[in-house]
Amino acid sequence: MAETAVSLTPTPLLKDELDIVIPTIRNLDFLEMWRPFFQPYHLIIVQDGDPSKTIKVPEGFDYELHNRNDINRILGPKASCISFKDSACRCFGYLVSKKKYVYTIDDDCFVAKDPSGKDINALEQHIKNLLSPSTPFFFNTLYDPYRNGADFVRGYPFSLREGVPTAVSHGLWLNIPDYDAPTQLVKPLERNTRYVDAVMTIPKGTLFPMCGMNLAFNRELIGPAMYFGLMGDGQPIGRYDDMWAGWCTKVICDHLGFGVKTGLPYIYHSKASNPFVNLKKEYKGIYWQEELIPFFQSAVLPKDCTTVQKCYIELSKQVRAKLGKVDEYFIKLADAMVTWIEAWDELNSSGNSGELADGTGKSNS
Amino acid sequence: MAETAVSLTPTPLLKDELDIVIPTIRNLDFLEMWRPFFQPYHLIIVQDGDPSKTIKVPEGFDYELHNRNDINRILGPKASCISFKDSACRCFGYLVSKKKYVYTIDDDCFVAKDPSGKDINALEQHIKNLLSPSTPFFFNTLYDPYRNGADFVRGYPFSLREGVPTAVSHGLWLNIPDYDAPTQLVKPLERNTRYVDAVMTIPKGTLFPMCGMNLAFNRELIGPAMYFGLMGDGQPIGRYDDMWAGWCTKVICDHLGFGVKTGLPYIYHSKASNPFVNLKKEYKGIYWQEELIPFFQSAVLPKDCTTVQKCYIELSKQVRAKLGKVDEYFIKLADAMVTWIEAWDELNSSGNSGELADGTGKSNS
Repeated sequence: MAETAVSLTPTPLLKDELDIVIPTIRNLDFLEMWRPFFQPYHLIIVQDGDPSKTIKVPEGFDYELHNRNDINRILGPKASCISFKDSACRCFGYLVSKKKYVYTIDDDCFVAKDPSGKDINALEQHIKNLLSPSTPFFFNTLYDPYRNGADFVRGYPFSLREGVPTAVSHGLWLNIPDYDAPTQLVKPLERNTRYVDAVMTIPKGTLFPMCGMNLAFNRELIGPAMYFGLMGDGQPIGRYDDMWAGWCTKVICDHLGFGVKTGLPYIYHSKASNPFVNLKKEYKGIYWQEELIPFFQSAVLPKDCTTVQKCYIELSKQVRAKLGKVDEYFIKLADAMVTWIEAWDELNSSGNSGELADGTGKSNS
Repeated sequence: MAETAVSLTPTPLLKDELDIVIPTIRNLDFLEMWRPFFQPYHLIIVQDGDPSKTIKVPEGFDYELHNRNDINRILGPKASCISFKDSACRCFGYLVSKKKYVYTIDDDCFVAKDPSGKDINALEQHIKNLLSPSTPFFFNTLYDPYRNGADFVRGYPFSLREGVPTAVSHGLWLNIPDYDAPTQLVKPLERNTRYVDAVMTIPKGTLFPMCGMNLAFNRELIGPAMYFGLMGDGQPIGRYDDMWAGWCTKVICDHLGFGVKTGLPYIYHSKASNPFVNLKKEYKGIYWQEELIPFFQSAVLPKDCTTVQKCYIELSKQVRAKLGKVDEYFIKLADAMVTWIEAWDELNSSGNSGELADGTGKSNS
């Protein structure tokens, strides 16, 4: 089992197969705390906001840093699909990564402790989650059946016990919970202190609110769906970047037969963002969301959508056709979804599989 | 919130609205350990096996006891739908209860301790689960949003935050996990020591393996679906009684818009049953299950099925039509499902709502 392998191996798991993507506007002092866990890995830092500002990265980390000038240079006109002044810019890091796996974390997230007081190696747990299968077709009441000390319970069909490949591992947060502005305003002092020792697969057909704060995914399986949309500067909404990515990703994972897990690992989320600022960013999203959820719940992808790119282009068409009526913003977003896939294929077509190359042609449709 | 109410109230919650149903073949010494939590409630003991045997119940408990002679006397020819020599007989207790809620527990289940070492009042947690809403339409990553210290996270649609009524609370087990015979044989020493501090709604459209060992439900909302089928003496399978009830119940809850929760509370399951005996009981079920799951996953109930009884009769027709081809046992089971509803309506028509009375007519169809 993965758990045993981890504790025995001296080399960090997936050392040369995983990039850590960090969007930021400030010096990355938070990395000091993560040094024992992150230092072996390559970091992709996406600098948001003013490109003339210098971001300090603690010594000893292997990293590349991209600011807005780099994004514009690398993507040319296609840079329009990458948000500015919003952490949605992080998806540029997914685009330029050449690795099979990505872990993304916010710079206000610190190392949490488990109930025994031990530092939680969040990345190691994400890797375990990604390397073991998911079980989206039937619920296991003892949670992750692949974990040491657990299994499938009586009544779980044997034909489903091999599971499916895991595409996404969604981690949680102790201390400041990921609340929307209205809930922040109503419960300013609420802190998450409950450590729930579980990882579970989100069942097929069920949507969830995917938070980008502490998130890992198999870039080879699902990367092109991890587009964080148009947020921030010049856009009517913010703070729905990860949600958008999550809804698109879940629909496509369900269609392609990949799994999405949530639960462990926890990080310690240090600082609540300003609820008044958040309310301004969110209010249209809160309203639109009531139409977005039924849209994604009823979205059906045709059988010939056999790659993530094909699925995503198809989804962009449905967004244009159905959500375009809700607001013209979604027309712009549908365009950006196509641009994103074009950019993805441009940067990823050579070194990748036939599946991805095949997607290139489709993205022009 | 329910949690506060519980700790403040001196009277046990739902004291006159809940029955505890216990199937047994032996003296109920296990009740001693549960005395602080169960004594205020009425017990319905369903004695399985030889009716001439005397079952001793510890002093001070308020109970009624039914053996096979009682079942035959009360139900007459309809007693054929109640299993003999199998804990499936417990559903007779659901039939004769006059209360709104039922909690059922096996006699080899003891009081578990939470991680702080405190005795867990399983019944109190079930009542909290049943009295707070469920959220089957969208997954909340911080688990039960109605629990103290938790809420709906960012991205959870506001229109769905009122939830739906909870019909079922499925509790878990520390120590001996609820494994099937093959898993018992492969992992004879595996014990469940992981206390997962969470309650969650099983999403709409997702089936789960419902275990009858530690289970509570709203009898008024879903009682007629809680039929534990034909198992044990004279039947080709055993140990699928609760599973059958769970699949039927989940399909009907999804159709009627009720919620099903799983997670807390834990009980301590003391003794593993014999895996060789279990294998004999289970082997046909393990095989049939591969057809049962797709059947229940694709079962659709028509809109005019507006009561649990109507839903259940409709389901019995689908069982006969589709599963009858798998084995003639399912024809017999479909007949028993109809008999069960007839018995339910006979015993529950007068004292209950028009909805239930309305079901009576349907059950003759």
